[in-house]
Amino acid sequence: MAIVLGPNQYGKAETRLVRLVRDSPVHGITDLNVSSALRGDFDAAYLDGDQRNVLPTDTQKNSAYVWAKKVVPDPIEAYGLALAHHFVDDVAPVEAARIEIERFDWTRVAVGGAPHDHTFVRTGQEVRTAAVTLEPPATHVVQGFKDLIVLKSTGSRFKDFLVDEYTTLQPTDDRIMATSLTARWRVSDPAADLDWNGMYAGVKAVMLERFATLDSLALQQTLWHMGRAALEAYPEIAEIRLVAPNKHHFLVDFTPFDESNENEVFHADDRPYGLIQASALRDDAAPAGDAWWTFVDLA
Amino acid sequence: MAIVLGPNQYGKAETRLVRLVRDSPVHGITDLNVSSALRGDFDAAYLDGDQRNVLPTDTQKNSAYVWAKKVVPDPIEAYGLALAHHFVDDVAPVEAARIEIERFDWTRVAVGGAPHDHTFVRTGQEVRTAAVTLEPPATHVVQGFKDLIVLKSTGSRFKDFLVDEYTTLQPTDDRIMATSLTARWRVSDPAADLDWNGMYAGVKAVMLERFATLDSLALQQTLWHMGRAALEAYPEIAEIRLVAPNKHHFLVDFTPFDESNENEVFHADDRPYGLIQASALRDDAAPAGDAWWTFVDLA
Amino acid sequence: MAIVLGPNQYGKAETRLVRLVRDSPVHGITDLNVSSALRGDFDAAYLDGDQRNVLPTDTQKNSAYVWAKKVVPDPIEAYGLALAHHFVDDVAPVEAARIEIERFDWTRVAVGGAPHDHTFVRTGQEVRTAAVTLEPPATHVVQGFKDLIVLKSTGSRFKDFLVDEYTTLQPTDDRIMATSLTARWRVSDPAADLDWNGMYAGVKAVMLERFATLDSLALQQTLWHMGRAALEAYPEIAEIRLVAPNKHHFLVDFTPFDESNENEVFHADDRPYGLIQASALRDDAAPAGDAWWTFVDLA
Amino acid sequence: MAIVLGPNQYGKAETRLVRLVRDSPVHGITDLNVSSALRGDFDAAYLDGDQRNVLPTDTQKNSAYVWAKKVVPDPIEAYGLALAHHFVDDVAPVEAARIEIERFDWTRVAVGGAPHDHTFVRTGQEVRTAAVTLEPPATHVVQGFKDLIVLKSTGSRFKDFLVDEYTTLQPTDDRIMATSLTARWRVSDPAADLDWNGMYAGVKAVMLERFATLDSLALQQTLWHMGRAALEAYPEIAEIRLVAPNKHHFLVDFTPFDESNENEVFHADDRPYGLIQASALRDDAAPAGDAWWTFVDLA
Repeated sequence: MAIVLGPNQYGKAETRLVRLVRDSPVHGITDLNVSSALRGDFDAAYLDGDQRNVLPTDTQKNSAYVWAKKVVPDPIEAYGLALAHHFVDDVAPVEAARIEIERFDWTRVAVGGAPHDHTFVRTGQEVRTAAVTLEPPATHVVQGFKDLIVLKSTGSRFKDFLVDEYTTLQPTDDRIMATSLTARWRVSDPAADLDWNGMYAGVKAVMLERFATLDSLALQQTLWHMGRAALEAYPEIAEIRLVAPNKHHFLVDFTPFDESNENEVFHADDRPYGLIQASALRDDAAPAGDAWWTFVDLA
Repeated sequence: MAIVLGPNQYGKAETRLVRLVRDSPVHGITDLNVSSALRGDFDAAYLDGDQRNVLPTDTQKNSAYVWAKKVVPDPIEAYGLALAHHFVDDVAPVEAARIEIERFDWTRVAVGGAPHDHTFVRTGQEVRTAAVTLEPPATHVVQGFKDLIVLKSTGSRFKDFLVDEYTTLQPTDDRIMATSLTARWRVSDPAADLDWNGMYAGVKAVMLERFATLDSLALQQTLWHMGRAALEAYPEIAEIRLVAPNKHHFLVDFTPFDESNENEVFHADDRPYGLIQASALRDDAAPAGDAWWTFVDLA
Repeated sequence: MAIVLGPNQYGKAETRLVRLVRDSPVHGITDLNVSSALRGDFDAAYLDGDQRNVLPTDTQKNSAYVWAKKVVPDPIEAYGLALAHHFVDDVAPVEAARIEIERFDWTRVAVGGAPHDHTFVRTGQEVRTAAVTLEPPATHVVQGFKDLIVLKSTGSRFKDFLVDEYTTLQPTDDRIMATSLTARWRVSDPAADLDWNGMYAGVKAVMLERFATLDSLALQQTLWHMGRAALEAYPEIAEIRLVAPNKHHFLVDFTPFDESNENEVFHADDRPYGLIQASALRDDAAPAGDAWWTFVDLA
Repeated sequence: MAIVLGPNQYGKAETRLVRLVRDSPVHGITDLNVSSALRGDFDAAYLDGDQRNVLPTDTQKNSAYVWAKKVVPDPIEAYGLALAHHFVDDVAPVEAARIEIERFDWTRVAVGGAPHDHTFVRTGQEVRTAAVTLEPPATHVVQGFKDLIVLKSTGSRFKDFLVDEYTTLQPTDDRIMATSLTARWRVSDPAADLDWNGMYAGVKAVMLERFATLDSLALQQTLWHMGRAALEAYPEIAEIRLVAPNKHHFLVDFTPFDESNENEVFHADDRPYGLIQASALRDDAAPAGDAWWTFVDLA
């Protein structure tokens, strides 16, 4: 019996990077939070404190900045791929690289009804995310978003569930369904000309439509149908994973007050919340490798 | 010399309340965080633990729910006024009431290009706020927002400042200016037919336009002009207060890398940040009374 | 009628500063979050964008670092006073200065039962705070803490309160009382040899003892007695202000499960919460001036 | 090619539960955040919205409360095991259960130098965690903590690292090393009489001692030695995983100010930060199964 080094990675997390495009009076802006992690021949750094193979995390930060200059980092997936290739191709001990990106959305301020050239307001509830894993010969891109808060005020029921001696929940044919959705979908070995921005908008639209129009019998069922719709719309997607807290809205009891409450006034509760994790995948999907081995999101 | 009770207030903070309107298949939604504080003849509760004058905070919560049923809480200012009047008019020991409200914005999900009847996505960066102070015979409504994140990628300079022996900052003719704006404006003894939603949209638009078009010499000057523009546009507003962190964007130094950086790649720093507090008011403004005595925001 | 500039201040917020003392192998550490705000003759900066009187916030940051070198910033109140005097005495346009400080507590790691020379673990739930306002000839120091979470599992009742038609709360003779306490106490024109660290420990101890031993009839009464005890113990204190959320612990209803619950199992709820603001002061207290005009805590 | 349901779990997250022991005037308190997730025969719920096998998350919450009454939930690992067994043993469709627990620490308030019977103050920086995975016939308990903030003011160097064209970092023989440590260690098929509280205190102490006494050549090496020390001290532990942000403390440059700075004044930066993930395991460790499949921490 011996004690051995297990899985490991290291890198620079949360480099907050703003890239402007100023080649005309109409400026462009890309606002990112970039993290990079390297995997490879780093055992000596852990076991003996030998840094000879260790590219400093400070250098990784510098590289993130420089690559944002070399190419405008939009779509973020292309930027992540370029940066990952730099680490894997140019830095000898690096065997695999992971780039995680958050993108914050801005829109132009309206002045006199027209979009302004260089003034922006941050918009959007959700944060677009990308995670590139380059582990030659495989390449994985996990596109996604987090914090997309959606709600339907009807068209959701929950009944005919398992009842045991600790069950007090009443079945319902009409409830509010609300969640703060995290969704991530994997494309392995993507085509060079894949339209990442188009796919992002498309998957989001397809999932929102499904959320809206499905007669919901449970959040589980809703997530499955949303995920399946994404895979049906985009054959490039190998699998999709969804995490959704069930943000409970409790009907306030008005009977003590001689008032009616016909599904009109709700208490939006914080904790606890139901939590559902679901995934949909193609049965012939390429292997995921380390595509889901997160870096910054790990608890 | 004696030790005496000083200023005090008590109430229920952060009642999370969702109000639906369901009188047609096209549902409406109002999503609020409501806090109420009572001021009045409550000394005995502090000094002797005598609760006879104390309306429980739980009752205040119930009242917030019931009043959201009696009237759809939109505009939030009208709802706040109605709830404040209930406490002051109907509960004997209450001499003044303060209602603080945050409103979260939702828009309809698009399905097939059309807005959906009952499915919503949370939008908007900023949170709309209102603080009603009813202290008869005066009534104050402080309308506002927080967390409105804006940025201009040029049109901002900072130079010709005071230099002492600890000054290392270099003057600049072109920098990013970005802030997360909190703005609050006071209307005292408002007219019954004041269009609160129109005023909110108008003040926000006027301030954003000013932010965009002003050649900024400093964040102080920018805030003053934004505030003054709001007062010029709306004679009902007695004063406006703005708080703005200067969210620094530092140009990344590319000289070690044989790359240029012509105001293109920036590091968005977290802390420290400059912080500016400014206010503009009419010289004949009605007295503010306790309009600015906050409840939940107090540290 | 004219629109005029109202109250304003500007400065550098949240400079995160760690000061080591290394004059022996047993190191000392002081870990601070420092904010400085200047008040004075700055109207031209707002009205005209004229920066000639404006000491950059970047310089204020540099000054905070340099003063932490000149004197070990412990007690934080002495450091704040020294830094405030620098701004008011050495920078001509500055008429008043405010320094706000948060201090994070560290203790030594135990190695073989003995405290280690240079290894520390962050401890303590609460954050010690200080706010120095130097507005010659007056000087105010507001000492305090925030986030001190306390709970008593019995010895708290709430009954005989005002009941109206919206009251459903049941009176109780035995409940959990818990809060996350913010307390701030003012010393004006402090003696040069005031033992700030001793006062901090003393006020905290006195208030905790009072919280523990008082038979609580309401959070209002508890806060008053805690504040009064602090003033009784320290004649230097002119006034004290307390803000306390009533962190509700609801007894879980076990009747459906054929189990008893004799005040044993509680749900600790997040929102809404009762919120109490109380203050105690001497009836001959020196005027507070701008001692309570906060900088960073303002919403 | 077909689209199929992938890995899934569902449950109730973050039930905030306080358990008092009141069988003597000296009360005991256990303060927990409990999450439960079920895995098993739930495909129909996703695919068809069929809830017949679905135990509501509300029932899981009720069960968490009831089990906290049946047994005092201390150690939390025993409580988690009991609750997991309830779900797996008593609810037919459940094939595996995961219980994740956070425990918040309280100590007694001192009154007159003695610990008070029923008044507590929340203490401790770190949060103790446990994750029980019951997937018969295997049982895994992952004990751990998060948010343990540690710092050493010397005894840390970083040099002789890989240098490429983007490297600007200077080597150092003396720097501050600080991190907010997350550590989790797995015990599979634990003995019934395992002293969980003793193991928790022991692992924490061993790791802190190692952090203090090791001459650090890199955070990677430090983590490895901390993890190995835990496995050497406790043969029951199969593996340990550590995640550590390198909380950078940058020496402030005083050369413009004619001041020295001999590793005395530092800027504690927020972002970006280095991030290191390390693990140590026995080469004959029992398989981990789904022990590391997190529920609430998943991004």
